Amino acid sequence: MSEYYIGVDLGGTYTKAGILRVENSSMDVYGFSEAPTPTDSRDMLIDSIVEAVRKMLEENDLPASACRGLGIGAPGPLNRARGMILHLPNIPGMSNLPLRDRIGDALGIPAVLENDANAAAMGEYLFGAGRDVQSMIMLTLGTGVGGGIIVDGQILHGAHDIAGEVGHIIVQPGGRLCNCGQHGCLEQYASATFLAKHAADEVRAGRKSILAKTLKKKGSIDAADVNEARKAGDALAAEAWDTAVHHLAIGCVTLERMLDCELIVLAGGLVNAGADLLDPLQAYYRELDWKLSEQMSPLAIATLGSRAGVHGAAGVAWQAFGS
Amino acid sequence: MSEYYIGVDLGGTYTKAGILRVENSSMDVYGFSEAPTPTDSRDMLIDSIVEAVRKMLEENDLPASACRGLGIGAPGPLNRARGMILHLPNIPGMSNLPLRDRIGDALGIPAVLENDANAAAMGEYLFGAGRDVQSMIMLTLGTGVGGGIIVDGQILHGAHDIAGEVGHIIVQPGGRLCNCGQHGCLEQYASATFLAKHAADEVRAGRKSILAKTLKKKGSIDAADVNEARKAGDALAAEAWDTAVHHLAIGCVTLERMLDCELIVLAGGLVNAGADLLDPLQAYYRELDWKLSEQMSPLAIATLGSRAGVHGAAGVAWQAFGS
Repeated sequence: MSEYYIGVDLGGTYTKAGILRVENSSMDVYGFSEAPTPTDSRDMLIDSIVEAVRKMLEENDLPASACRGLGIGAPGPLNRARGMILHLPNIPGMSNLPLRDRIGDALGIPAVLENDANAAAMGEYLFGAGRDVQSMIMLTLGTGVGGGIIVDGQILHGAHDIAGEVGHIIVQPGGRLCNCGQHGCLEQYASATFLAKHAADEVRAGRKSILAKTLKKKGSIDAADVNEARKAGDALAAEAWDTAVHHLAIGCVTLERMLDCELIVLAGGLVNAGADLLDPLQAYYRELDWKLSEQMSPLAIATLGSRAGVHGAAGVAWQAFGS
Repeated sequence: MSEYYIGVDLGGTYTKAGILRVENSSMDVYGFSEAPTPTDSRDMLIDSIVEAVRKMLEENDLPASACRGLGIGAPGPLNRARGMILHLPNIPGMSNLPLRDRIGDALGIPAVLENDANAAAMGEYLFGAGRDVQSMIMLTLGTGVGGGIIVDGQILHGAHDIAGEVGHIIVQPGGRLCNCGQHGCLEQYASATFLAKHAADEVRAGRKSILAKTLKKKGSIDAADVNEARKAGDALAAEAWDTAVHHLAIGCVTLERMLDCELIVLAGGLVNAGADLLDPLQAYYRELDWKLSEQMSPLAIATLGSRAGVHGAAGVAWQAFGS
């Protein structure tokens, strides 16, 4: 007999939902839906999620009563035990929002709240790049650097629900000042946004680069622009790319030594560069890594893209409420 | 009714043993014994451990049949699942030694093998500085920098039994070359041995310091010498001490961000300096730490000294074989 779980991925712009079907040992996620996240009021936010799930269930002929659980991945900081969003960085007015119980009660489905980066890691672990391993670390190289750690199939939450802040491990003492107040955080080097930002800063400071033209035309540059300029032989772009990749490799070595996971999964905008990222990263990672053993935590690119969060949120519900 | 477990801490020079008594929710370790570790042959090593445990049991009027389990903490690398020492760094001829079964069979007590740094962390967690927390990291600042990570009361072993190698997280990219082949490992900065070694190297290279006299007299200097010279106003010593403390604080921030443990416990030779270590370390740790929340993983000095390993090995046996 099949069991059903709902996954919801609450994003600052879009909210996604999907259905997880578990039958014997096989699992699949289907029935994806996506809708803009309303930011006007708390009630509108809640109602919109509830309606999106209801519509998705109807379209798939699945009664809510057939669902064993619902998982919600949401940006932090959260109080996971109480199922509350403490505040949403990109949506004002959402402080101390009891999201779990409001949505669970409205739908009549037991619900669980999880950090969105952890949910995405769980998605890749159950359904994506990590499906054949028992432990992995996921690094999402996007606006910032997010992370999630899975040990023996469980999310490592930490004592205050803030373990796995891999974007804020220090990879360059006294390095770039991070928004968090630390210097030299991994995020300041290896996020798609900051890689591009620091290249743009150098151009604005007068350094010669073909990126100056892009910056003038578009008003900003992104990581893909830096990679294109690098491939066209631009020295500044090559340096910016190399700095990012080098510091990412340092971070990977530190993660490997600390956690000894079976796999490090890379996701987010920067992995769109494919081999342009992975090949030099792999080379640095091997060069920097210890010589006492072979490499213990190989690298892999995430396979689920933006659906990792929905998959993972449903998987978290399965872990919480499954038989 | 009381339950009894044996702890054995196999060291390169001395082997220690003790008895853990568990009664209701109270636990205590007693009956310590200590004997030189024979290094001549595998059989002598095994026999000496077995005899030491037998003698300790006799002296405490405890039959082996009353013991539910025996834990052995040993230097790595180990194959924990098979209970084997793969090799002992400081004792040649011990490769692929099935220590767990040889000792367990000889005594007729179910046995479990654990990495010695993990066992020491478990000791501090159950009986020492970490007795009131659920998660902690232990850093032993001695010859090298050893570590053990406890999450929700369990040792974090990793996929290949080498998690918690905190001495080899990278705290200075391109920094000092470590014996492991990496550059800038925490161990190269914050171990008692390397702190002193790098100060001695600078003296030998001709840098002026009152340590030159100590070095000439003793042939070598240790971390305590560096601290004394620092207190006497020596500039080189002050710099060496500061470098160690600063990099240790960087490592603590990275550990805090990754694991979000309730406590970071410091042990080993360097903590003999007491407030001379802890005060400046605390200051750097707060300065370098993020400003998004209060400090999540405060520092504490270990309380069990060299007995942490025995306590912890017995605790590992209790976890493995306890009711």
